[in-house]
Order: sequence, then structure tokens, then C-alpha cells
Amino acid sequence: MKLSIERAALLRAVARAQSVVERRNTIPILANVLIEAEGDEIKFRATDLDIEVVDNAPAKVERAGSSTVNAVTFHEIVRKLPDGALVSLTDDGASGRLNVEAGRSSFALATLPRQDFPVMATSEYDSTFTAPAPVLRRLFDKSKFAISTEETRYYLNGVYMHVADAEGRQVLRCVATDGHRLARIDAELPEGAEGMPGVIVPRKAVGELRKLLEDDEMKIEVSVSETKIRFATPEITLTSKVIDGTFPDYSRVIPQGNSRKLEVDASDFARAVDRVATVSSERSRAVKMQLDEDRLILSVNAPDAGNAEEELVVAYADEKLEIGFNAKYLLEIASQVDRENAVFLFNSSGDPTLMREGDDTSAVYVVMPMRV
Amino acid sequence: MKLSIERAALLRAVARAQSVVERRNTIPILANVLIEAEGDEIKFRATDLDIEVVDNAPAKVERAGSSTVNAVTFHEIVRKLPDGALVSLTDDGASGRLNVEAGRSSFALATLPRQDFPVMATSEYDSTFTAPAPVLRRLFDKSKFAISTEETRYYLNGVYMHVADAEGRQVLRCVATDGHRLARIDAELPEGAEGMPGVIVPRKAVGELRKLLEDDEMKIEVSVSETKIRFATPEITLTSKVIDGTFPDYSRVIPQGNSRKLEVDASDFARAVDRVATVSSERSRAVKMQLDEDRLILSVNAPDAGNAEEELVVAYADEKLEIGFNAKYLLEIASQVDRENAVFLFNSSGDPTLMREGDDTSAVYVVMPMRV
Repeated sequence: MKLSIERAALLRAVARAQSVVERRNTIPILANVLIEAEGDEIKFRATDLDIEVVDNAPAKVERAGSSTVNAVTFHEIVRKLPDGALVSLTDDGASGRLNVEAGRSSFALATLPRQDFPVMATSEYDSTFTAPAPVLRRLFDKSKFAISTEETRYYLNGVYMHVADAEGRQVLRCVATDGHRLARIDAELPEGAEGMPGVIVPRKAVGELRKLLEDDEMKIEVSVSETKIRFATPEITLTSKVIDGTFPDYSRVIPQGNSRKLEVDASDFARAVDRVATVSSERSRAVKMQLDEDRLILSVNAPDAGNAEEELVVAYADEKLEIGFNAKYLLEIASQVDRENAVFLFNSSGDPTLMREGDDTSAVYVVMPMRV
Repeated sequence: MKLSIERAALLRAVARAQSVVERRNTIPILANVLIEAEGDEIKFRATDLDIEVVDNAPAKVERAGSSTVNAVTFHEIVRKLPDGALVSLTDDGASGRLNVEAGRSSFALATLPRQDFPVMATSEYDSTFTAPAPVLRRLFDKSKFAISTEETRYYLNGVYMHVADAEGRQVLRCVATDGHRLARIDAELPEGAEGMPGVIVPRKAVGELRKLLEDDEMKIEVSVSETKIRFATPEITLTSKVIDGTFPDYSRVIPQGNSRKLEVDASDFARAVDRVATVSSERSRAVKMQLDEDRLILSVNAPDAGNAEEELVVAYADEKLEIGFNAKYLLEIASQVDRENAVFLFNSSGDPTLMREGDDTSAVYVVMPMRV
């Protein structure tokens, strides 16, 4: 392999590929990035056996071929090269080294055999559709905070993406829950997604996907099978195994009959919750909400440290209510609201509470109360 | 105690005071800040028994008095209050609570008895002088990287500030070393510093002092005794015990006869060292410098990972030389150079090397070589 490539293009491609590499590897080849040069293109491939990223960049290829080098070291070197440098990469296949040269800098990096690199098997996908980056960003950004971190409940360690029925029409829906709170986000169903099997996209894939969604103008091609999901832009392909499990029937958790309605400015509410929670250093801080006509009192009582109280003017016209929540859950949910007032719908102090943005039912959150 | 104070002034004062509080305390009162209100001023005092910070701010005091509350919680609360709020602090002395009120927010924080708070004994100082913030900043910033972290060599765990003789005139000098490298920084002797005893200012005090030195226009009053050092601005007083030990006779370590002179652009040099060091992940990475007429080759050889080489055009007119250094030490020293070229003076590959900025002898660095 012998090629030259502009440093900025190289850095961009390597940076994206190496981010999937796990820092601690028991299998040495998994610390490496596979470099393949052919035609007028260079491809970087990295994997952790569950997720594979393939990134391509234009290059001047003198001799086609491939090489694998440590992803972190290679990325660090490229990052530290001067801006504007032309970088040449050479692997003669015999020396066990990849030569990296730019200006007066030269590096010889240890390689591992190309055939040891685990390339993810290609699959047949059941369904392929295209979605604009902002649509996918909203679906995953607003749901991922509720992903469970409990490894024993592996089927909750991701976002459940599927086709669902919302008020009589089909939508593309993302749901995540850890049993204490739940997020359910809907988007218009893209053409071609109708027959898509429901899949649980693992947490790490959701994180890697996020990096593909920065550009508002980008369209993402999504391919789904029972076992894999693939997100592709012209430059990057991210393929991930999906979680082999059954996502619970979340619809039963979403309360339908909650009638006590509180409407509050979401950022005022979040700031007040954040302040009252300060007095307690416990991990699961309970915030008490006391509701009375158009008035909300938030309070925390931590016998050792002290107590805190905040009063907010709100819209509330129902019976008095006292209900407690984990401060962290309230904060996370309130911070999802970006356009309008937060609307809470309560039943009693022991029942799950529903939260949404104004009258918009395309993003709905459920949170379980705590005894206070 | 009863007073009111503008949130911004309160935040500034509390933020500075609380930074000295250790996060893990076995003595509960050390987690607290002592608040004292009298006249038209409020004072915040925090200590870790070695360092004490006293910070004052103007306040409207209705009833003089004092209170102690958890520094971190209090700081967090003040930080989260809305900008522009007027904060009232009340401690009736009987309830064991400090009441913090601002707008519709109210907090009652647990207090500890004021008499348990360890106030550092006032001392007689042998010498007091005034120095502009930029002068002290230079003295400590350029020396602190060389402070030893070996706890057994406690007398090297700080910066040795003393009066010294430099080419026939007296200077204020800061020296730090860990046995592998040494920094010696001189400044003009401020009036009143002549009789100052030499003191070792501990690492943490150097860090806290740094926060007092941000304002270029600020003049700092420095008071020194055999056991303590105090830095004061109109708003803050930082008092620290000094390290009870004898700083070694560093002058013998500074080579006098090194005659082989290398002159190199400091930032080019630092970037090249940084790049070649990338190939090795070992903690003490040796970089080899090969000097020949007006040419410097930097190289690292890591059998497992590969090797790297950089060539630099430099000014060097002496015999060929090969010498090795710890990459981290070279980088730290090169990054001290901010105005001119770095000048290295070598003797042989086994002898300490001297580095300075151009012909300026008021900042001198020594680094021990490594075998490569």
C-alpha cells in the first residue's frame, strides 16, 4: 500500500473511526484500525465486535493495499501533524511497519496482519429508509437519558426503535426506560420504514450515531434487520448489532387517565429543582412537590444538612396534591422541554406521572413517584 | 447574625474561600466556611489547617454575628441563585440553622458551633513587601511544574522562595526541583524583602495563590516568617504554613561550564517532541536528540509500537552529540519559553543540561539526561 492524503481529511476520517475502539482490549487487533486503499479512496475500519465504523476519504493511491495499526497512536500522530501537511502512508507488507511521513516527520508504526482483523459479516436488511439528521437526532436525544444502566436488564440497555400506531397513524417511535422513568418519542414514518422490524439499539451505538447527526442538512440512510442496524452517510457507515431481547410492553406503563394538570415554565422549574436538591448529597434525592391553586412549592428535607423550599407561580386548578420525585429524574425530564411549557399530568401521589411539552403528544415522558 | 448581600459579591467571596476546603474531611468543621458579619462587611474564612483563606465582601449587616455552614453546599446554592438576586443570611444562634433567602427560594442549612472553627493563630512576620501580580505569577508559574510529588522528600514538595545573589545583585528567587529537573526563576528584589527568610511554599498554597494573581493591576502584599507566608489583596488574605525542612543547595546542581550551545524555536521544538513521543505509551518516554551542524534529529524507538523521527533546522556549531531525555520533562521545559528561542547548553550525554530563554538568565532550567 502506498498513498498520500491531505492531513485534514485524514484526521477527520481517523478521528471518527477510532472513537469506536475500546481503550482496554484483551484482543490486540481490536485496538487497531484497518486501512484499505483502492482506486482514489482510503477506507478506515474499526470495530469492537458489536459496532463497526467504516469511514472513507479521498486519497491519491499509488499502490493499492491494506494495513492495520493502533488506532489511538495513529490518531494522535495525525492530530499532532501540522495543519495543511500532506501525509504519505506506506506499507510494503514485509517489514511489519506502516510508514507515516509528513514534511520532516517520519514514523514507523507496528502493524498486525490484515487477515486477523474481524470484518463484520454483511447482512440482508429487511427495510431501508432515509431520514434527515434532525429527525433522528430528536428521536434519540430525547429518549437516551432514560436508557437503563443495569446490565442484568440487558433488554433495557438501549433505545427501542420501531413502527407504532399513534392516534390512528403510523409513526417511527423511539422508547427507552429504566423502570423508573420512560421516554416515548415519535416522528413521522419515513417512506420505506413501514415493514421495519422493531430493534433495540444499544447505548454505545446511540452515542456513536450522534456524531453522524451534527449536520442539519445530512440525510441518513437507515437499514434494519432482526439482528443489525446500519446508519450510512456518503462518508461513514456505522453498523451495530441490536440487543437480542424483547423490549417490554411499555404502553401499559403510560398512564391514560391522569387528569390533574400542572403547567409550568420548564426552565424556571428545572432551576428551582436544581437549587432545592443542593441541600442533600444523597444519591437519590427526593424533591417534594406541593400543589395548590396556581402555586407549586418544591422542597427538600435532609435532616443532616438542612432543608430548602422554592415557590413557583404555575397554572394548576385541581385539588391539592403532595407528590415526591427523584430530583435527578425531574431535572432530566424538565431539560428535554425546549420549546414550550412543561405540562405534568398527575393521578395520585402513588401513581406514575406523565409529562409532555405543551399539548404535543409526540414526546411523552413518564416518571414514577417516590414516597416523601 | 442578620445581613443582606448582593448575590454576585457573595458568590465571588464564597467561591474563593471554599476552594481551599478539602473534599474529604475527617474533621467535620473543616468542611465548613466561617461567616462573620460586622460593620458593613462580611468575612468568609476557610481552612485545611495548613492554609487559611479569608475573603471579605461589602454587606448590609443588620445584626452582627457569625455562623459556620458546609462550604460546598453553601457555594452551590449561591451559584444556582438567579443573577442579580439580593440574598439574606440569618442565624438566630438557637436553631442550629443558617437561613438563606432570595426571592421565592429559602434554605435552612445545618450549622456547627462557631467556637469549634480552627482560626489560624496570628503571627509576627519578619518581613513584608509588595509585589505586582504579574511578577509573582511569573515566579511561581515558571517554577511550579518542577515541584516534586514524592511525599518522602517533603522538603521538595513546594517552591523555595528566597533572596539570592545573581551576578552581584540581590534578587527574589523561586526554585523548585524533583531531582530530575530544576527551575530557577529570578525577579527584581521588592523593597522590604531584603531580610526575608527563605521559605518553602507548599504546592497547594502555590495553587491557591495563583487565583489571587489573575488581575495584572493588582499589588500583592507578601509577609514572611520562618513558619508562615501570607499573601494579601484588599479583598483576600491567604495564609499558609511553610514546609518545615531545608531546601537542598541547588546551586551545585546548576552546571556552569556547559559550552555546547543549541538554539531552537521553542514551539517548533515542543511540537516535534510531542509528535515523536506519541509512538511510545511508556510513562518515562526517552527522546533521543542527535545534534550535528545546524541540524537536530529527535527520535523515539519503542520496539513494540514502532519508531518516530523528526528533523529540525537549528543553530548548532559544536561537535556531534547524542543525548536522551524524558519526553515529558523536555515538553514542560520547552513550554516555559514564551518570548524567544530556547537555548540549550550541553556538556556531555551524561551531564545535566541547562536551558534558558535566549540570553535571559533570570529563568534557568536544568534537566538530567536519560540513557538511550
